[in-house]
Amino acid sequence: MCEATAYLMRKNGDEELLLADVDLIEPQEGGQMRLVSIYGEQKVLKAKIKSMSLVNHRVVLAEQ
Amino acid sequence: MCEATAYLMRKNGDEELLLADVDLIEPQEGGQMRLVSIYGEQKVLKAKIKSMSLVNHRVVLAEQ
Repeated sequence: MCEATAYLMRKNGDEELLLADVDLIEPQEGGQMRLVSIYGEQKVLKAKIKSMSLVNHRVVLAEQ
Repeated sequence: MCEATAYLMRKNGDEELLLADVDLIEPQEGGQMRLVSIYGEQKVLKAKIKSMSLVNHRVVLAEQ
């Protein structure tokens, strides 16, 4: 499977696990980002994509 | 392998192939987006992420 793990980089530079097994990533209106895992778990938060490596299954979002 | 195919949605709504076998996706300064394939092919263009499904290996960027 090709889902990824999403991490959130806080404004102070700390990185934490946000959501595992992410399938969907969809920017929303108002600077929100929506992530949905393959299990249907959903997170919506004010963040931007910082970097993404699909081969490494790694998505890093930056807190806004 | 978990790379994806990136499509570009033009302002008129047309969708076209942008880059195959994408590994890295990195927003840059000034609204540019950088994509790099597993073969090292790189595209940098003024676009935003519209939607992404990792399970479907599909990334859609919207032309800005």
